[in-house]
Amino acid sequence: MIKSPYLLFLGDAADGLAAKVAQGIKDWRPDLSVGQYRMNGCNADLGLSDMTFDQAVDAGAKTLVIGVANRGGVISAEWKAKLIEALEAGLDIASGLHNLLKDEKVLVDKAEELGRSLFDVRIPTEAYPIASGIKRTGKRCLAVGTDCSVGKMYTGLAIEKEMLSRNIKATFRSTGQTGILITGNGVPLDAVIADFMAGSVEHLTPDNDENHWDLIEGQGSLYHASYSGVTMALIHGGQPDALILCHEPTREHMRGLPDFKLPSLDELRDTALIMAKIVNPNVKVVGISVNTQHLDEVSANEYLSSTEQRMGIPAVDPFRHGAARLVDALEAC
Amino acid sequence: MIKSPYLLFLGDAADGLAAKVAQGIKDWRPDLSVGQYRMNGCNADLGLSDMTFDQAVDAGAKTLVIGVANRGGVISAEWKAKLIEALEAGLDIASGLHNLLKDEKVLVDKAEELGRSLFDVRIPTEAYPIASGIKRTGKRCLAVGTDCSVGKMYTGLAIEKEMLSRNIKATFRSTGQTGILITGNGVPLDAVIADFMAGSVEHLTPDNDENHWDLIEGQGSLYHASYSGVTMALIHGGQPDALILCHEPTREHMRGLPDFKLPSLDELRDTALIMAKIVNPNVKVVGISVNTQHLDEVSANEYLSSTEQRMGIPAVDPFRHGAARLVDALEAC
Repeated sequence: MIKSPYLLFLGDAADGLAAKVAQGIKDWRPDLSVGQYRMNGCNADLGLSDMTFDQAVDAGAKTLVIGVANRGGVISAEWKAKLIEALEAGLDIASGLHNLLKDEKVLVDKAEELGRSLFDVRIPTEAYPIASGIKRTGKRCLAVGTDCSVGKMYTGLAIEKEMLSRNIKATFRSTGQTGILITGNGVPLDAVIADFMAGSVEHLTPDNDENHWDLIEGQGSLYHASYSGVTMALIHGGQPDALILCHEPTREHMRGLPDFKLPSLDELRDTALIMAKIVNPNVKVVGISVNTQHLDEVSANEYLSSTEQRMGIPAVDPFRHGAARLVDALEAC
Repeated sequence: MIKSPYLLFLGDAADGLAAKVAQGIKDWRPDLSVGQYRMNGCNADLGLSDMTFDQAVDAGAKTLVIGVANRGGVISAEWKAKLIEALEAGLDIASGLHNLLKDEKVLVDKAEELGRSLFDVRIPTEAYPIASGIKRTGKRCLAVGTDCSVGKMYTGLAIEKEMLSRNIKATFRSTGQTGILITGNGVPLDAVIADFMAGSVEHLTPDNDENHWDLIEGQGSLYHASYSGVTMALIHGGQPDALILCHEPTREHMRGLPDFKLPSLDELRDTALIMAKIVNPNVKVVGISVNTQHLDEVSANEYLSSTEQRMGIPAVDPFRHGAARLVDALEAC
């Protein structure tokens, strides 16, 4: 849907973290970008070639992907001037910002005038069906978390990478804005109408080869009061054969909910299994992915090994150690 | 929001069942309607006065409420002619049809010309917040079902009626089209954007007097693969203090899902409690509402009494026996 290769727009990013969408694209789809575009005052640097829009077009770029969060919840006049230059140079624009490109008349008019496309991956562009619940062929793995933002996307992408390196058929299925920009397609699940959530996940993960794995990007958490409905729809629309539990062990409360503690991994395992067995009685929890970025190496290894011992399934941090043991567990599944 | 009193539009209803929305309004808000409007060939009759639009306006009616399903998924030319007559007579129009009034240009133009309002209760008219999970004052009861369409709305309305007759402060909180037409407001939850589902339920059931009961209309089922996400958002947005389990004991499979059996009431109790305790550790399952319409009196009573004995909480059919015992259980809660 979004034409590649990309030029990654880093804008006037305050720091590297602000450009995490661009970083994700570079990390997971390194062949997808010809370079980066940085404005004056940009403090992010992906280590890609800095290019003007014209240089990027000459290098084959088709789409300028906004890989940075905007400041203050608006698309600034400075950004708009650059985005218009990009359209004029021949690029489409793709964005996952809350502020939609299509709400900026000056961009819409210019794109129309020049025959360029604007992609707001934050909103659905398709009409999804109501879920049928019918069993599909192929295998599906879903990452479920004790909380939001604990590494579910990273885990799925790391498993996909490891599977592809072993010549296992696998597809990461994006359900959020960053994932969609990384893979070029997917379902922006949090923006789907309630009645069609599970149906959109079925649509995203259709019948496939018996030995093909869909690695479905998780969202929210069954334990997160704001977003648990989205997680539920992923479980029932995704019909996973395998679940990977995701956790960040130093977090003191659920993200955005100071009154809510995180559940234990044991609680998450039991609850997720109850819900997932409704659509697939054979589903198994096969592994645990722990985001140990806030632990030192010794503490991380201690946490992983005690967790693994207690729960009886592999517990790894795919960022530190790769996803090989998770893939081993999925292959054994 | 929707101005009352109503004139109930029965159109060319094939039978009484087709006019079940109008029947619901008449049953639960008998003072809300001045009469009914029937076209040629209408086979439904609520026993209200048949009125022309002018007569209804003279009797005080403010809104024509479409209380009947349309045939063939279109708003027919015959209907449109009548609806225009109604606008001309001075009535607003409210509808829960899938076909929106606002998509019918002839109605939109006429309403605008005359300064009338068109209400499509199937779509949200408000921007809802993301759920905060913050504990609210007042008490909340949610009906959860083993399946869709097992009597959750009826149960909530019956409990509200019984509570009001005892001078207990209570408000039925509508989350579906029929409920919204019955009460004049609510949240059309199945049409809300995923991220805002739980927030819309919080918005619908705000802080209230300590001894006030919100009776939240349930939707879907945790066990229904198509709609479980909606149910989940009701549980986490509603923060219920009390759950009523709803069931239809003769149903052979989940509605619309031939491959899925209904869960047992015991399974539903256990699963709903796990999910509801995440937001309210003190939540209790206080009663069971069984839709026994397909059982004879003896079988119904046998089913209710054996269920009550097994589960240890009151099991009643509020249609046959009223909701008094459910209200007793809620008062004891």
